[in-house]
Amino acid sequence: MTADTITAADIRINARWLIPIEPADVVLEHQAVLVQGDRIAAIVSQDEADARFRAKEVIDLPSHVVLPGLINMHGHAAMSLFRGMADDLPLMTWLNDHIWPAEGAFVSEAFIADGTQLAMAEMLRTGTTTFSDMYFFPEIVAQLAHDAGMRAQVCFPLLDFPTPWGSGPEEYLSKGEAFIKQWQNNAFIMPAIGPHAPYTVSDEPLSKAVALSQATGAPIQIHLHETAFEVADALEKSGKRPTERLAELKVLGANTQCVHMTQIDESDVALLKSTGTHVIHCPESNLKLASGLSPVQTFRKAGVNVAIGTDGAASNNDLDLFGELNTAAMLAKVVADDASALSAHEALAMATIQGAKALGRDHELGSLAAGKLADIIAVDLGDPFLQPVYDPASHLVYSNHGRQVSHSWINGVPQVQEGKLTRIDVPDLMLRVQGWADRIREQQTS
Amino acid sequence: MTADTITAADIRINARWLIPIEPADVVLEHQAVLVQGDRIAAIVSQDEADARFRAKEVIDLPSHVVLPGLINMHGHAAMSLFRGMADDLPLMTWLNDHIWPAEGAFVSEAFIADGTQLAMAEMLRTGTTTFSDMYFFPEIVAQLAHDAGMRAQVCFPLLDFPTPWGSGPEEYLSKGEAFIKQWQNNAFIMPAIGPHAPYTVSDEPLSKAVALSQATGAPIQIHLHETAFEVADALEKSGKRPTERLAELKVLGANTQCVHMTQIDESDVALLKSTGTHVIHCPESNLKLASGLSPVQTFRKAGVNVAIGTDGAASNNDLDLFGELNTAAMLAKVVADDASALSAHEALAMATIQGAKALGRDHELGSLAAGKLADIIAVDLGDPFLQPVYDPASHLVYSNHGRQVSHSWINGVPQVQEGKLTRIDVPDLMLRVQGWADRIREQQTS
Repeated sequence: MTADTITAADIRINARWLIPIEPADVVLEHQAVLVQGDRIAAIVSQDEADARFRAKEVIDLPSHVVLPGLINMHGHAAMSLFRGMADDLPLMTWLNDHIWPAEGAFVSEAFIADGTQLAMAEMLRTGTTTFSDMYFFPEIVAQLAHDAGMRAQVCFPLLDFPTPWGSGPEEYLSKGEAFIKQWQNNAFIMPAIGPHAPYTVSDEPLSKAVALSQATGAPIQIHLHETAFEVADALEKSGKRPTERLAELKVLGANTQCVHMTQIDESDVALLKSTGTHVIHCPESNLKLASGLSPVQTFRKAGVNVAIGTDGAASNNDLDLFGELNTAAMLAKVVADDASALSAHEALAMATIQGAKALGRDHELGSLAAGKLADIIAVDLGDPFLQPVYDPASHLVYSNHGRQVSHSWINGVPQVQEGKLTRIDVPDLMLRVQGWADRIREQQTS
Repeated sequence: MTADTITAADIRINARWLIPIEPADVVLEHQAVLVQGDRIAAIVSQDEADARFRAKEVIDLPSHVVLPGLINMHGHAAMSLFRGMADDLPLMTWLNDHIWPAEGAFVSEAFIADGTQLAMAEMLRTGTTTFSDMYFFPEIVAQLAHDAGMRAQVCFPLLDFPTPWGSGPEEYLSKGEAFIKQWQNNAFIMPAIGPHAPYTVSDEPLSKAVALSQATGAPIQIHLHETAFEVADALEKSGKRPTERLAELKVLGANTQCVHMTQIDESDVALLKSTGTHVIHCPESNLKLASGLSPVQTFRKAGVNVAIGTDGAASNNDLDLFGELNTAAMLAKVVADDASALSAHEALAMATIQGAKALGRDHELGSLAAGKLADIIAVDLGDPFLQPVYDPASHLVYSNHGRQVSHSWINGVPQVQEGKLTRIDVPDLMLRVQGWADRIREQQTS
């Protein structure tokens, strides 16, 4: 072998186990992932890597499983500052007496910045490399995610009524259009349109959102069929199910992500399938707010793409996507009355390649393969209480929690090393979080 | 103040927060727990403790919440060696093709010893101080728990058919009676009778189990109404629901714990209530095996005592009772269609005082109060991703996981210090676990 048969690489990751996600249901052993720049250059056996590559940096992960970075497809990042502020309350009491007054009192650019950074830190620490956000001041969220080197779909809000970010639909849409233009084609930020829900956005702004999506290619994300009340109320007032109305307004489509999707009948499944609409499943929020059960297995069998999200920390109360996968995989079984529904591998696909599909970026995200972007995480299965390991996919979904994540890279850049965040100053962040907590606590008890 | 107003104590625990469980829904701040011998001597403010007590050892827990040790009321400890061996399979495939062949090949005294120790280590690490076990070779489990200083209700098995522990009902009952006599009145071990399930134990051995329970005071624990098939099959074969048959045989009663309890109708609730029978809720096992949903809130409203268990690691796949509480609290809300069902405080009571009630030991276990046994745990809420802390009870149930447990004491003796086990040699245990894993892996793939 001569020197010119040796290829240079920036990073070589030696993985005890590797789950590429595509092809499905595969666990490889003793592989090496070679990263060059922002891409995966090759995935080969460690022996082949010895012969063919020389890397500047070698990371040995002898008790770890390596997989694509997780994609958290729904959340309200800055609500992490409201984590555990009000629990165990009926939905309307929770909103009217706690969340909305707190939002009214505190949501500002500074609040969004600190809360979003807290959420990004927790997500990075627990294996998420791409997240979707739907909250106020999207321009702040986009800048923060970009500066931290984290991928984010950032949805600007659209509602019929005024909020801290705008006076009404017209202003949301004009600011939103500028926001899309600013960030479109950025490597990290995917600007998107976030009409809040069918019951908070009228037909006209919804139609304008569809036009904006078609003109710019920006996706739409909307809360849909979150509760039984939403569906019953729509039927009573308009004679139409929310899905039917959104289909008529052309909101449903291959560039649209519908979040929650409980209270489902055959007509809903048919509309989602025929339009190519994506479902974002948020099982823990659906349980904790008593919203209802989403028939994930029914969607999957019908060929509807289902991704997963944590929702905001106020209704979860954490942003650990591994915990969410655990809940999703267990819950899907009892909902489908089938213990084989949503296997561990299928759950992992939901948090990776199926999230990438919902974003329209499955050609470069969501699985580990040569040529794809180097968004990679490693989970250490060496913990005594994860023993024995028969199947690393099972452990990731059923026995693991996000704190076992040891490493992550986004675009080939390290974000977590040996369990420590590399690009967010956590002690400084904690000081700011405590400041907000003191003020929020005072407001809640006054 | 003179020297004789100062009381000596072995340990003083300074707690940022303290949840005594009784009275309900209370969080105290800046308390000191004084431990003398195996009992709690006093719980007073830190200022009062300065004035009244001098302790040999002072433990400062400035970012921690202190609460009673958790009580895991149902499991099959040694099945930890089968963790993640076979998942996502229909129940009968799982049992017939994986669990039963593996049990047939491996269950022995040595297997039970190593598997039980692995389970005890995980339970201690994650905050459990008392567990209930129902598996083979109960004498081994009792001895191990006793030697480790962990409290355990150990149920000897009773079935119609032979197992590695006995040839049939007669032998199980005679060995079981000797087992009860050996351990009764031990501070750590509560011997109990474990008829497997209505469909695996005939009327005659069930009646003998009742007689043995009445003669000795030993509790009965039985799997009941685990699946829809169990109830439908019993109705078809006998015209009776399993609860009805067990009531007629006098199996139900204040000294009996029924595990699972899905597929519930009003007659079941009435029988449980009128007999004072305890329910052991295993939400994650019920989800993962697609067994069904247990109406926890209905039981609670009817005044039926509900405790909680993880079930074995083969169907969970961990023994972290904090994770189980999270699932229980979230799931109860959607099952009851009420976001206020099973609050964080109520969930914590289920894993402490209600477990103690099911064991008939709520006079000395399950809450923190002067005079009670010193089974105490501390959970560190200082982690960045548990911030902000508005309500420590919320964080314990909705944001926490068992690895945040920093300290535990059983009978006043430290079991976990700064997250490390004090009385189990984990590296040595891991060697034995790897040995079993290698053999089991070989059998599964052969």
